[in-house]
Amino acid sequence: MTEQEALDYHKKKRGKIEIAAKTSIRTKKDLRLAYTPGVAFASLAIAKDKTQDRVLTNKGNSVAIITDGTAVLGLGDIGPEAAIPVMEGKSAIFKSFAGIDGYPISLAEKDPKKIIDIILALAPNYAGINLEDISAPRCFEIERTLRRKLEIPVFHDDQHGAAIIVVSALVNALSLVKKKAEDIKLVVNGAGAAGIATIHLLLAYGVKHITAVDKQGILHKRAKGMHKYQAEIAALINPKRRGGLKEAIEGADVFIGFSVGNVLTKSMVASMAKKAIVFACANPTPEINPKDAKQAGAYIVATGRSDYPNQINNALVFPGLFKGLLEAGAAEITPQAMICAATCLAGLVKKPSPGNIVPSLFNRRVVETVAFTIRQPGVCVCKY
Amino acid sequence: MTEQEALDYHKKKRGKIEIAAKTSIRTKKDLRLAYTPGVAFASLAIAKDKTQDRVLTNKGNSVAIITDGTAVLGLGDIGPEAAIPVMEGKSAIFKSFAGIDGYPISLAEKDPKKIIDIILALAPNYAGINLEDISAPRCFEIERTLRRKLEIPVFHDDQHGAAIIVVSALVNALSLVKKKAEDIKLVVNGAGAAGIATIHLLLAYGVKHITAVDKQGILHKRAKGMHKYQAEIAALINPKRRGGLKEAIEGADVFIGFSVGNVLTKSMVASMAKKAIVFACANPTPEINPKDAKQAGAYIVATGRSDYPNQINNALVFPGLFKGLLEAGAAEITPQAMICAATCLAGLVKKPSPGNIVPSLFNRRVVETVAFTIRQPGVCVCKY
Repeated sequence: MTEQEALDYHKKKRGKIEIAAKTSIRTKKDLRLAYTPGVAFASLAIAKDKTQDRVLTNKGNSVAIITDGTAVLGLGDIGPEAAIPVMEGKSAIFKSFAGIDGYPISLAEKDPKKIIDIILALAPNYAGINLEDISAPRCFEIERTLRRKLEIPVFHDDQHGAAIIVVSALVNALSLVKKKAEDIKLVVNGAGAAGIATIHLLLAYGVKHITAVDKQGILHKRAKGMHKYQAEIAALINPKRRGGLKEAIEGADVFIGFSVGNVLTKSMVASMAKKAIVFACANPTPEINPKDAKQAGAYIVATGRSDYPNQINNALVFPGLFKGLLEAGAAEITPQAMICAATCLAGLVKKPSPGNIVPSLFNRRVVETVAFTIRQPGVCVCKY
Repeated sequence: MTEQEALDYHKKKRGKIEIAAKTSIRTKKDLRLAYTPGVAFASLAIAKDKTQDRVLTNKGNSVAIITDGTAVLGLGDIGPEAAIPVMEGKSAIFKSFAGIDGYPISLAEKDPKKIIDIILALAPNYAGINLEDISAPRCFEIERTLRRKLEIPVFHDDQHGAAIIVVSALVNALSLVKKKAEDIKLVVNGAGAAGIATIHLLLAYGVKHITAVDKQGILHKRAKGMHKYQAEIAALINPKRRGGLKEAIEGADVFIGFSVGNVLTKSMVASMAKKAIVFACANPTPEINPKDAKQAGAYIVATGRSDYPNQINNALVFPGLFKGLLEAGAAEITPQAMICAATCLAGLVKKPSPGNIVPSLFNRRVVETVAFTIRQPGVCVCKY
C-alpha cells in the first residue's frame, strides 16, 4: 500500500463514516412521529424516567471515541484535526465488526481537568466512552477520574486493548516455546499508556520477572524522572538490574516494545535467552525489523503491522470489549475478565506456530469471544 | 397520532439514527487503508495542511446539533437525556432532506461560558454548529460568542430558522390580504429566542410598526425586567402603547406568537384589524386554536403543528440553510440572504390561499431553494 493509495482511499468518499437515518422520512406522518409533535412524547417519557433513553434513542448502542490528538498512533501530538481519520477508522471498525455506533470526537483542549469536564458534559449521549490516543501520563488521570465519576464504561484503548492483545499473543507464544509465565524474564520497553497497562495485566497473569525501560533507563523504586503511574509500577516490579535497554534485555525471554522504531538492535536480540520472543509494537516503524530479529535469533516475532506475520492489533479487542460491556450493562472489567478475553482469543488460533500466534480479525468468532468473556461473570470459559 | 404510536415508533429501532461506514471493512487490505498503517498518511497530510480535513474525512459534511436541554420544544428545561429524541429527529431530517450528517450532542452543562468552551473544543470535528433548544437569553450570548470565535457557521435554529419561515409565511399572507409590510401593525408575543430573531428580520424586511409583548407586558425603552437582548429590540421598535397583549393587539393586522398555549383569546382576535393574520406558533399547544381564531374573525391562521393547515416549520429552513452554507464554505448569512430565502420559499407555493401559505416540506425544491439563496451573493434571484 502506497501513500497515494491511502490518500485516494480517504478522498474517494471524503472520509469513512456518515450518519444514517434508521427510518427515512417520506411522509407527513413520518415527520409527525420522528419530529414534532410525536417526538415530544419520547422526550417526556425520558424526562419522567431517564432509563428510557436506552429504549427510545440510539444511546444504548452509542460509544464516544474521544481523543485530544496528543498521541495519535506513533505520530505524537499532531492535533485534533489530524486525529480525525484515526477516530473515523475506529468508528468504521466498531460498526463493521460489532455493529456499535462510534461517534468520533477530537477535542481542541489539552488540559486534563477541562477534558474531564467536557467528557462529563458529553456523557448523557453515550453508553460508553472509548478514550483514544491521549498522551501519558495525562491519559491515566483522565481515565481514572472519569471511571470514578461516570456510571458508563470508560476505557482507554491504548491501555487495555493493547494489554489484552499482547497477553493473548504471549499465551500462544509461551506455549510454543514451552516456557511458563511465572518463570520467564520479560522486558517492556516504553512505559507509556500501553506499556503500563500491559505490565499490570502481565502481573495479574502471573508473570513475575518484569523489567520496564523508559527514557531514563530501567525503572526501579529510586529511578528519577518518573511520573506517578510509572512510580506505581516501578514499586510493584522493582527489578534489581540497573542501566538501559541493553542491560535489561540480556538473558530475557520476552521483549515487548511500545516505544519507537529501530531501538532494538540485532546484538540486543542476540543477547536474549534461547527461543526468544520479540513483540515490536511501535507503529508504523517497529523497534526492530522482523527479518533482523529472526536473523539475530528470535524464535517468534510479532509487530503492530498488518504486512508482517503476527499483527498485535487492538482492533481484535475493542469492538468485542464494548459489545460485551453494552450487552451486560456493565461499567467495569476485572483483570480476570481481561485475562479470560486474552486466553480465549489465543484459543481461536487453531494450530499456533511461530508465524501464527494471533487470530485473524476477520475470524467472526473474535468479536463474539471477547464480548462473551466480558459478559460472563466469574470463572473463565472459552465458549466460542 | 397517539402517544403510544409515537413511543412505539421510537422503540421499534431504538431511536432514529445510527453511524454507517461509507466503505465496509472486509479484507486485510481494507483494514490497512482505513486504519493502520494507511490512516497515518491521511493524518500526516492534515497535520501538514489543516484544510485537508475537508478532503480526507467526513468533516465537510458534518454539523453538530447541540443543546443543553433547557428549552426543548415548548416543554422547557427537561434535561439533556430527554432532549436526545429531538436532536436525533433533527439529525434524521438533516440526512433525509439535505444529505447532511448531523451529530446530536446534548450537554449536561448549563453555564453559558462553559458551554462556549465545550463547543470551541468540539469545533474541529464539524463544518457547522446548529444550536438548538437553548433557553433565552443564554442562547444569545452563546451564539454571538461562538460566531465571533469560530470560522465555521454557527446558527441557533430556534432564532434564525423560525425568523425565516415566519417571514416567508407573512410574504404570502400579506399578498393575500393586499397589505404592505411597511403599513401593517404587527404584534409579537413572546420575546425569547424566536421572537427576538423574528423581530430583527421583520425590521430588515421593512415592517415598521412592531409591538413586542413578554411576561412584563409591552416592551418599550423603559420597560422593567428586560434582559440585554430584549432591551436591544425595545430600543429599536419602541412602541407608544403600554399594557399587555390585550392592549397591544387592538387594531393589529398581524399576531405572531412564540409563547405558550391558549394565551390569545377570541375577543383579542376580534379586536384586530380586518383580514387579520394570526401565526400561533407555540408548540405543542398553539396560542389559540385555529378554529377559534377563524370564528373570531382571523382571515389567515398558521400554527407550528402539522395537523392544521399552514405549518410554520423550521424544518423548511435548516436543512437548506446548512446545505447552502457548507456548499459555499460560508460562515455568515446576511439579513438580505435570509429575506431572499423567505421570499423564494414563499414563491414555491403555486397558488397561495388562506389555507396554503407555506410550501410542503416534501416539495423537493424547498431545500434547493433555501440552499441556493444562501449560496448566492448580492441580488435575490429565486431560481428554483
